[in-house]
Amino acid sequence: MMDLDIFYRTTKNKFFLRESLFLFLVCVLSTLTAIAQGPPEDKDALFIREIHDIALTQGSCYGWLTDLTTVGFGRLAGSPAAAAAVDYTRKMLDTLGVDSVWLQPCRVPRWVRGEKEQVQIVLPDKKTIELKALALGNSIGTGANGITAPVIEVRSLDEVDSLPDEAVKGKIVFFNRPMDPRQINTFNAYGGAVDQRVYGASRAAKKGAVAVVVRSMTNRLDDNPHTGTLSYQDPTQRIPAVAISTNDAEKLSALLKGSALSIYLRTTCETLSDVESFNVIAEWRGSERPGDIILVGGHLDAWDVGGGAHDDGSGCVQAMDVLQILKRLNYQPKHTIRCVLFMNEENGLVGGRTYWQTSNELEEYHMAAIESDRGGFSPRGFTAEGHVSIFQQKYKHVYQWEPLLEPYGLHLRLGGSGADISGLKDQKGLLFGLDVDTQRYFDFHHTAVDVIEAVNERELELGAAAMTSLVFLLDQYGLE
Amino acid sequence: MMDLDIFYRTTKNKFFLRESLFLFLVCVLSTLTAIAQGPPEDKDALFIREIHDIALTQGSCYGWLTDLTTVGFGRLAGSPAAAAAVDYTRKMLDTLGVDSVWLQPCRVPRWVRGEKEQVQIVLPDKKTIELKALALGNSIGTGANGITAPVIEVRSLDEVDSLPDEAVKGKIVFFNRPMDPRQINTFNAYGGAVDQRVYGASRAAKKGAVAVVVRSMTNRLDDNPHTGTLSYQDPTQRIPAVAISTNDAEKLSALLKGSALSIYLRTTCETLSDVESFNVIAEWRGSERPGDIILVGGHLDAWDVGGGAHDDGSGCVQAMDVLQILKRLNYQPKHTIRCVLFMNEENGLVGGRTYWQTSNELEEYHMAAIESDRGGFSPRGFTAEGHVSIFQQKYKHVYQWEPLLEPYGLHLRLGGSGADISGLKDQKGLLFGLDVDTQRYFDFHHTAVDVIEAVNERELELGAAAMTSLVFLLDQYGLE
Repeated sequence: MMDLDIFYRTTKNKFFLRESLFLFLVCVLSTLTAIAQGPPEDKDALFIREIHDIALTQGSCYGWLTDLTTVGFGRLAGSPAAAAAVDYTRKMLDTLGVDSVWLQPCRVPRWVRGEKEQVQIVLPDKKTIELKALALGNSIGTGANGITAPVIEVRSLDEVDSLPDEAVKGKIVFFNRPMDPRQINTFNAYGGAVDQRVYGASRAAKKGAVAVVVRSMTNRLDDNPHTGTLSYQDPTQRIPAVAISTNDAEKLSALLKGSALSIYLRTTCETLSDVESFNVIAEWRGSERPGDIILVGGHLDAWDVGGGAHDDGSGCVQAMDVLQILKRLNYQPKHTIRCVLFMNEENGLVGGRTYWQTSNELEEYHMAAIESDRGGFSPRGFTAEGHVSIFQQKYKHVYQWEPLLEPYGLHLRLGGSGADISGLKDQKGLLFGLDVDTQRYFDFHHTAVDVIEAVNERELELGAAAMTSLVFLLDQYGLE
Repeated sequence: MMDLDIFYRTTKNKFFLRESLFLFLVCVLSTLTAIAQGPPEDKDALFIREIHDIALTQGSCYGWLTDLTTVGFGRLAGSPAAAAAVDYTRKMLDTLGVDSVWLQPCRVPRWVRGEKEQVQIVLPDKKTIELKALALGNSIGTGANGITAPVIEVRSLDEVDSLPDEAVKGKIVFFNRPMDPRQINTFNAYGGAVDQRVYGASRAAKKGAVAVVVRSMTNRLDDNPHTGTLSYQDPTQRIPAVAISTNDAEKLSALLKGSALSIYLRTTCETLSDVESFNVIAEWRGSERPGDIILVGGHLDAWDVGGGAHDDGSGCVQAMDVLQILKRLNYQPKHTIRCVLFMNEENGLVGGRTYWQTSNELEEYHMAAIESDRGGFSPRGFTAEGHVSIFQQKYKHVYQWEPLLEPYGLHLRLGGSGADISGLKDQKGLLFGLDVDTQRYFDFHHTAVDVIEAVNERELELGAAAMTSLVFLLDQYGLE
């Protein structure tokens, strides 16, 4: 994949020795290709301008997001708030005048946090220091009496593995490797640290630990604990797990340098029986190739502690706005445009799996799918991926459109699309993720402060406009 | 200028019919040029990577900004807070170990706001509605008794000009044309609306108006009035002027549709005698071409009602951090690097004028100057301008470096640099402005909410890293 990325970077603008001859040849070939294919028309540029005008002056996404984060506050899969979010978005989609809106059933896990978590450092003199904490999603609880145990600090899963069993047995393991601040894209930093949250409990349990405490996944030093899912690798070895705020992680680490400490932990979270829930789907059938689907989507569920404004209310309302903006422009799509709001991305991905498994069984063809799940920040373009057998050719095709997107600061690059659509790859269309400015995402991700006030209206609207513009180009020119 | 922009856009990545032949020729020429010039080395990419590492892990700019917005809160030119800001930044620059730090005197105007503004709608039944308002900088006051007069709403300077004298005489003119939300770059929207704030009072006074009320310069609908400077074109025709919040502008406009209204206005602002103030300058002399100066800067003054965190504390601390980051990397510049914090950009530009007039008299050569004055938001690259006789050639030279900046999301484009450095153009170097994501700037600009909490630490640091990277490349390769 990276070779291709270097290839495209190379065609862009570097005139250096090494690439010179290569570039020369590329230019000759590209010129000939361009002459053969013909130009996108000025009317495309004008239409994309109109898309942005509508998004910025008559877009509905910010209003929808305000409502969704209210009626669906804390809408973890299976919760009443999630059901309210399904109901609300279905109703809104019903107002748009597309061909059909329906709910696709899926049975989701139902994890509940229970009472407010208690996490305390127990000092040698038995005094305690309260820590700001959230149980991790899917975690078991400690039982009503809580757990008190000595705490040991580690920086990685490997470090736990390398410790002798007796150093871990009966202990609470504190995972404290920060996200790497040197990563420009904060998702890369997240990717480099989140194994502690996802697998920390399993790896520590294997060594006999009784619980884990994980440093929150954020570059900031602040007081907001960040929840998120864990995954128990062995169902017989499940131990409670919480995240603590980065300020508290720093405090705990500093105190551990002075003396041995214990932690008292009390959580009452539990997993109840599965619940029926739904993906929310709206379809606008194409006039020429109705069997070719262009999907836009986000995930409707969010963590229970916040409004899920950036994660991923933003993606949902942007996907909805794609339909609304095109409707306001009296557009008639040639291909079928489907808006899908997926359920249970956060702690199970049942909605995504249900959608793509059903789609694969029905032998549908998603010519393209675009997910927005990186927050409602200023768009920077799109990341793209696809089945290896078709990717290079189709990406080259789309790459030609970049000059139409560049005036809006939008660029194309290789990269993942979105968890909910990743299973559509075998249909051999292209999969895109809305690429945004990532600096602030982990200030809010999975916290109580991921609320509407954290979203800038124009940044959200520009993301909706970016998605609509790509949908328009895909619909106009297809991928063949 | 635009033709050149199209030229560069064209070389970047479009392979469409119209440009195809042109592109082909450009590629041939560029390839030959590249072969002649040789490549920037991998060591450059590595050094730019190190610059970013240092900025994100050991940068000082956020800490400095926290201090500056505290000790220098409300640091309008000539104020005690501005003097404290001069003192603080000089001290910080003194710690960096560069060759010299000095203050360049300049006499600045001293405008003071006086008591809290009172602006009220007076309804036909004499009831009043309080509006959130700020007097415009440089405005005269109403006198202690205030002014009450009928209000008329207009959308432009031209509309005032077109009205019969008797429609304006004795009235308060309400300028209510919003910033255009369709502009992607919010500075363009600002540029399209700010004539009302700058010249509204003069144009209305010419027709006999007694005061003006201006809609605040922001795309948002909120309760924060935005101050900013006005300019009296005729010193014998000065009338008081205030800005009201956009929510209040909407309210006033709606009420005016129902009935004729008056406004009561009371401001006690005034312009005192000029005061001695200073530009703060730090110089790090070059080892090979000390006579060639690379300037980095921002303006130190800010409006009196806020912390001036984005405008332009951010630019100042980023410019300071350029020196600090290079020092931490044990860099030895070939050219002289000068960090200049300009005084009085907001309401007079005396610092900028003093600097460039002195520099021109001394026959200095600023090979390049970079100003950061668009807020401490995620950097997008640089805008560039220069004397017409050298611009094309020098910009082409710099444009070759873009591949080294692209991994950080940084691009070059044509555009203005900064008010404080604009007068250096005749020295025939290149002038740059740090280009950032502009969506949130006018949420804070010239308001009480432009405080440290509005600045994201990583976004600020990335801007400092971007400036440092460009300084490094300019210093390594010059502009010849």
